Amino acid sequence: MTITILFGGSSYEHEVSIVSAITMKKVLKKSRLNFVFVSPQRDFYLIDTAQMKSKYFSSGDYRKNRQLTLKKTGFFLEGIFGSKPLESDVVLNLIHGRDGEDGKIASLLSFYAVPFIAPRTEASALSYNKLYTKCLAQSVGVKTLPYAHLSRHDERRVEMDYPVIVKPVRLGSSIGLSVVKSAEELDYALDVAFEFDTDVIIEPFIEDIKEYNQAGAWIGEWALSIIEEPHKEGFLDFEKKYMDFSRDARVNEAEIPEKLKADIEESFRKIYDPLFRGSVTRCDFFVIEGEVYLNEINPVPGSMANYLFEDFEALLVKLSRNLPVEENIIIDYRYIDTIHNAKGKA
Amino acid sequence: MTITILFGGSSYEHEVSIVSAITMKKVLKKSRLNFVFVSPQRDFYLIDTAQMKSKYFSSGDYRKNRQLTLKKTGFFLEGIFGSKPLESDVVLNLIHGRDGEDGKIASLLSFYAVPFIAPRTEASALSYNKLYTKCLAQSVGVKTLPYAHLSRHDERRVEMDYPVIVKPVRLGSSIGLSVVKSAEELDYALDVAFEFDTDVIIEPFIEDIKEYNQAGAWIGEWALSIIEEPHKEGFLDFEKKYMDFSRDARVNEAEIPEKLKADIEESFRKIYDPLFRGSVTRCDFFVIEGEVYLNEINPVPGSMANYLFEDFEALLVKLSRNLPVEENIIIDYRYIDTIHNAKGKA
Repeated sequence: MTITILFGGSSYEHEVSIVSAITMKKVLKKSRLNFVFVSPQRDFYLIDTAQMKSKYFSSGDYRKNRQLTLKKTGFFLEGIFGSKPLESDVVLNLIHGRDGEDGKIASLLSFYAVPFIAPRTEASALSYNKLYTKCLAQSVGVKTLPYAHLSRHDERRVEMDYPVIVKPVRLGSSIGLSVVKSAEELDYALDVAFEFDTDVIIEPFIEDIKEYNQAGAWIGEWALSIIEEPHKEGFLDFEKKYMDFSRDARVNEAEIPEKLKADIEESFRKIYDPLFRGSVTRCDFFVIEGEVYLNEINPVPGSMANYLFEDFEALLVKLSRNLPVEENIIIDYRYIDTIHNAKGKA
Repeated sequence: MTITILFGGSSYEHEVSIVSAITMKKVLKKSRLNFVFVSPQRDFYLIDTAQMKSKYFSSGDYRKNRQLTLKKTGFFLEGIFGSKPLESDVVLNLIHGRDGEDGKIASLLSFYAVPFIAPRTEASALSYNKLYTKCLAQSVGVKTLPYAHLSRHDERRVEMDYPVIVKPVRLGSSIGLSVVKSAEELDYALDVAFEFDTDVIIEPFIEDIKEYNQAGAWIGEWALSIIEEPHKEGFLDFEKKYMDFSRDARVNEAEIPEKLKADIEESFRKIYDPLFRGSVTRCDFFVIEGEVYLNEINPVPGSMANYLFEDFEALLVKLSRNLPVEENIIIDYRYIDTIHNAKGKA
């Protein structure tokens, strides 16, 4: 199978996307791979696999490569003798943050009928926004932490015990996020968050909260990963995150009771199905007094959460054969024809 | 100003989009217009203004025209001597339903930095889905009717007084929608709705409910339309809707108390701002006992709701000078460089 790995993008997470893509080169050993880099200016470049090193991008050397055009059915190399398709069975969207996770890339690939692995537009738009993620969780019966929502021009009144955590609704990578210990600090944290977004959510901050990550996909049947208990030292700052996105070694399964494992898996399935079909998604859950709460959805997780699966490459192959099929809308112009026949004119 | 009108699309509302586009030809008299047709197969065709008659599309004659490619900054005519840009100041997205209102066209135009009039991806994805429209309304403090939400595999139990109305969450044009008078009829109505969607919402059906439509845009200041009380005979069936999309004559303002007018306008502003900036959106409200409830958001309203504005063309010109600006993310590769300097390797 030939997998086209799409990475980069006009995103705060552009650099970690490069790291994720390099990790895929190590993980996907049996498949033929195309690497398609989306430059900060949103040009598409076909990158030779041998050049897949981070320095190649930071130096700007990638610009020596040929550009591609995205058109119906896939990417094309334009030449003097016309347009030549890039051979590919499936595109793996590995762009983190804006473009990749906000629904733009999903829309482009859907519109042009290019088979791809990633959430579709609607799932992306919802999970990219922490406020709408709450709605989504509620609509499928998965708990989330209580929260307050403030828009930029709202009165800054929050009825919540401190400490709280203030988050811009749309950004990943911990950008603009603060833990606030008392009411006096709230204003400053809101100023910071509103620098990045029109809307913020505020949640209780619970020290040493238990956190568990579950990834999975629907591949004609459920393919759920092991559950990991991530070892976080406070927040992941950007450099730690950078290292985190290069993970490719299998991790140990969290040692948790069977009942809790089943509850986490069930919560994952509720969130994922059917909205996230076509993707390998990772959900991060909190557990408080034995109850499962959705923290966040990672529609394009770092290094695709490959390290949580026994055989990640086999999973991608099966998933690529079970992608959601867009409804075929037949347009027969019967309304226009009916009205013409009735009116006898244009 | 040159306005590129994008219409058609792979949508159940393909035909009414053609009608909307033809109406724009009548309404926009001072601007230069390009008509770009998105065929049912999603090819882009440049249509001569003189050919903008519905029969030209139903007959397939549009295929005689030159195709366009969408690339960075806009549409291009491809020729032997290279790519020639189609001159345009702004694209008006007039595709109703799938592609136009679900976020796909918004994503394409945003990604390629093409200035356009229509809601952006997130606003589109939310307003295209009646369930998430409820979330959106709630998050900005606008009332909606109470509702039940059922997914395809949920138990079909609904605690609501009859009559109710059953709606697939994602389709417009009254497709798959039924009024249900008693519990015995519910099962059949759900079967019909689930033919079209994985999810439905069920709302109380209120005979002779008062309905008011308000359109508007943010153009550096608020430009709200008059409020119309639409005269609906039960549901608009598709043919009536077809005629409805060709409206270009100004309508009379609804005769309502000043307080109600102010409440409807305020509800519109809460829904619109800031999510729908860049668009001319129409919101349809119910009024029950003096209270305003959002019924639905039309992110790409029929014939752009031009008939509700005093000078629709001037509105588009001002709006095109006040489009939302995408945040400029600067990618400086400092993390990659930092890690290289620390590790001395790729």
